[in-house]
Amino acid sequence: MSSSAPQDTGHRLWSVDEHLADVLATVRPLEPIELQLLDAQGCVLVEDVTVPVALPPFDNSSMDGYAVRTADVQGVSEEFPAVLTVIGDVAAGSGELPTVGPGEAARIMTGAPLPPGAEAVVPVEWTDGGTGGGAAAGMTPASSAPEHAGGEVRVHRAAEARAHVRARGSDVQAGDLALAAGTVLGPPQIALLAAIGRGTVRVRPRPRVVVLSTGSELVQPGEALTAGTIYDSNSFALAAAARDAGAIAYRVGAVADDADTLRSTIEDQLIRADLLVTTGGVSVGAYDVVKEALSSVGSGDAASGDAAGSGIDFRKLAMQPGKPQGFGVVGPDHTPLLALPGNPVSSYVSFELFVRPAIRALMGLPESEVRRPSVRAVLKADKALGSPAGRRQFLRGAYDAESGTVSPVGGSGSHLIAALAHADSLMVVPEDVTSVEPGTELEVVLLS
Amino acid sequence: MSSSAPQDTGHRLWSVDEHLADVLATVRPLEPIELQLLDAQGCVLVEDVTVPVALPPFDNSSMDGYAVRTADVQGVSEEFPAVLTVIGDVAAGSGELPTVGPGEAARIMTGAPLPPGAEAVVPVEWTDGGTGGGAAAGMTPASSAPEHAGGEVRVHRAAEARAHVRARGSDVQAGDLALAAGTVLGPPQIALLAAIGRGTVRVRPRPRVVVLSTGSELVQPGEALTAGTIYDSNSFALAAAARDAGAIAYRVGAVADDADTLRSTIEDQLIRADLLVTTGGVSVGAYDVVKEALSSVGSGDAASGDAAGSGIDFRKLAMQPGKPQGFGVVGPDHTPLLALPGNPVSSYVSFELFVRPAIRALMGLPESEVRRPSVRAVLKADKALGSPAGRRQFLRGAYDAESGTVSPVGGSGSHLIAALAHADSLMVVPEDVTSVEPGTELEVVLLS
Repeated sequence: MSSSAPQDTGHRLWSVDEHLADVLATVRPLEPIELQLLDAQGCVLVEDVTVPVALPPFDNSSMDGYAVRTADVQGVSEEFPAVLTVIGDVAAGSGELPTVGPGEAARIMTGAPLPPGAEAVVPVEWTDGGTGGGAAAGMTPASSAPEHAGGEVRVHRAAEARAHVRARGSDVQAGDLALAAGTVLGPPQIALLAAIGRGTVRVRPRPRVVVLSTGSELVQPGEALTAGTIYDSNSFALAAAARDAGAIAYRVGAVADDADTLRSTIEDQLIRADLLVTTGGVSVGAYDVVKEALSSVGSGDAASGDAAGSGIDFRKLAMQPGKPQGFGVVGPDHTPLLALPGNPVSSYVSFELFVRPAIRALMGLPESEVRRPSVRAVLKADKALGSPAGRRQFLRGAYDAESGTVSPVGGSGSHLIAALAHADSLMVVPEDVTSVEPGTELEVVLLS
Repeated sequence: MSSSAPQDTGHRLWSVDEHLADVLATVRPLEPIELQLLDAQGCVLVEDVTVPVALPPFDNSSMDGYAVRTADVQGVSEEFPAVLTVIGDVAAGSGELPTVGPGEAARIMTGAPLPPGAEAVVPVEWTDGGTGGGAAAGMTPASSAPEHAGGEVRVHRAAEARAHVRARGSDVQAGDLALAAGTVLGPPQIALLAAIGRGTVRVRPRPRVVVLSTGSELVQPGEALTAGTIYDSNSFALAAAARDAGAIAYRVGAVADDADTLRSTIEDQLIRADLLVTTGGVSVGAYDVVKEALSSVGSGDAASGDAAGSGIDFRKLAMQPGKPQGFGVVGPDHTPLLALPGNPVSSYVSFELFVRPAIRALMGLPESEVRRPSVRAVLKADKALGSPAGRRQFLRGAYDAESGTVSPVGGSGSHLIAALAHADSLMVVPEDVTSVEPGTELEVVLLS
């Protein structure tokens, strides 16, 4: 190694897999916290949740109808109905229940507790609904016809014991395991937790990811470009990608190429960061400030109290795009930091390969959900794709699930951000392959 | 129809497809608004966005190295290097550029503009980096070795014209279509919009969905159950599901079975609703207040100024679970309202089939993304599945993509919320099928 680049750890190339393994070996799932149920959506449960009380908690009606004793409705028909005395209404939520005696019925609503004495429910459509007419299609609102909670009802069809009754505990029993630790909480899991009475739940929180881009050439979108400047796209793209991965993203925006400014910005941001992502400034240039600012390990500069200057390792990866990468931990809490290259496509591909898995590892997601899924697909192209020897290449692709093919989108240049916006996948060309003929099967990483 | 249920539109059963078609024919995409780029994530673009300025906006270096004239480095080697006078640094963001004359070189950083006079860039690794030694591995930071922006550099390898130069407009040209109206804005699309300088963008906003459950029996999770009560799970489940579909969800919580309370709650909420979803109170019971409160169309009760009482049609669907459904518009803005049945599984299945598509139609998503995707899978089960004649049944399933099979999870009871939390799909049993043997191919709706 030349003395002009003291911050490199060596000339050796890291493989993509080695770098990812290093990231995942360093990143630990976040400490769990108790969250309100809806705040826990998308998070990973860290406790086995058992059922405190049976569901349903009491025998209840599955229909709107009449709670009856089965003996009273045996053998009845429309011609020879049972005529029962209606002793009142049992609405859902009723606390005090009437007792149904022989020759009696209680009008009962779906979800209401089966009253004592009753053995079954006959749906209202099997009765005259208390009107004295033919088969009822439904009940009138109790508010407009309170008299129907009394009087008589004609029942036209028999019901067996327990007919239209949902038994206590028929969904889950007290003590059952409702959800195991490690479950990701989507809407149906939130439904179950609410149903068993859990208002809060212990989960790993969403990681807070601070995204900043570096480069004196960067101008905020919406402002005017001047000579030699371009728009900052990385901080927007990666903040969006971090949210997409499940994180709470904070976009700091672009920081000029000045090591002190960058160091103090990072120190400032540490308070709200579970993970830091920078772009740019990691290569071999004279203004690569990320490298300069974060490579001060072993510089003996302890007097500066420089918490952000520890432990970032800059390395070269056997990949294209995305060769220069930095990774390590910074600050008193050893917050992980990934320093990505600055070219928009390089940074985006690097994010997908390394930052997204880091975010999902922080969330405590199961290993199968840490990485993007990939499939095998056949290359559909006019000509062979070239790829550099010894480097794993990631090319933007359009995947067609129906035909099992993938087509290249745009070229291999790491600045081709327009192509990226029209791709849905990354085609992977292995390190030892320098040319891929049309018709060859490739690994394809699905991005959405 | 019996006179006891005047609010039903008729005895005829609506098919699932008819009901969905009615919902989608009523719901219109929301009016577009201009949003900050990151606020537009997941939204649908409503304008064709053209490129205002070429990308990259100027010829620039793709490497850290030296900008040279090709004639000066022709035929050079490590043994016979070109020795060039370094006239200064060109960093990314440099506005004023030096002119590179014969025998001269400018040190240049990745992304920096190619200075006038220069025709190519030689990477620093092809030079001595100005150190007078062997091949350089990189540059020292300009801040610690400013002298390297001057002096001499030895170039060991020739470069052709335009080598390591990214040409102005090589990514996109001014006037090119960057993104077409209708594009969904994910991270790569946000990257492109930022790169071309768009700080804001015109999109359809996320719909605001108000979710409320009804039922006097409902208790908020975390509180104590009393006799005859159960926990409210629907408002949690559907708020989570609405967010999952892309909406901004507002959970109102449970409203007691009182028509006036419900009406005033709905009127209150209209101000923040693009769509209202209620659960419960839509069947034939005497306390089905949603039906009671929202069925006042044609009741002549105009004096009450009852904006929330117009136009909800209650109907029976040929499906299980989810037979009773209400749909229509309420209030001065004709806000769509879906009144779902109250059983947790019924309401969740109804949400998936009708509310989710409504939300995605409000977002203006393309038709292919309005509905959940479905696949064909072979039933894997111990015994045949029964299904009621004339009704399309939706059973909770566990889908295995590898084997192309689906297995039932739990039973068909509409209260089996525990099973729902362990399912990932809905198995669809057509209306005319009453029994499905193991090995039969079924349509399976994928829920995640």
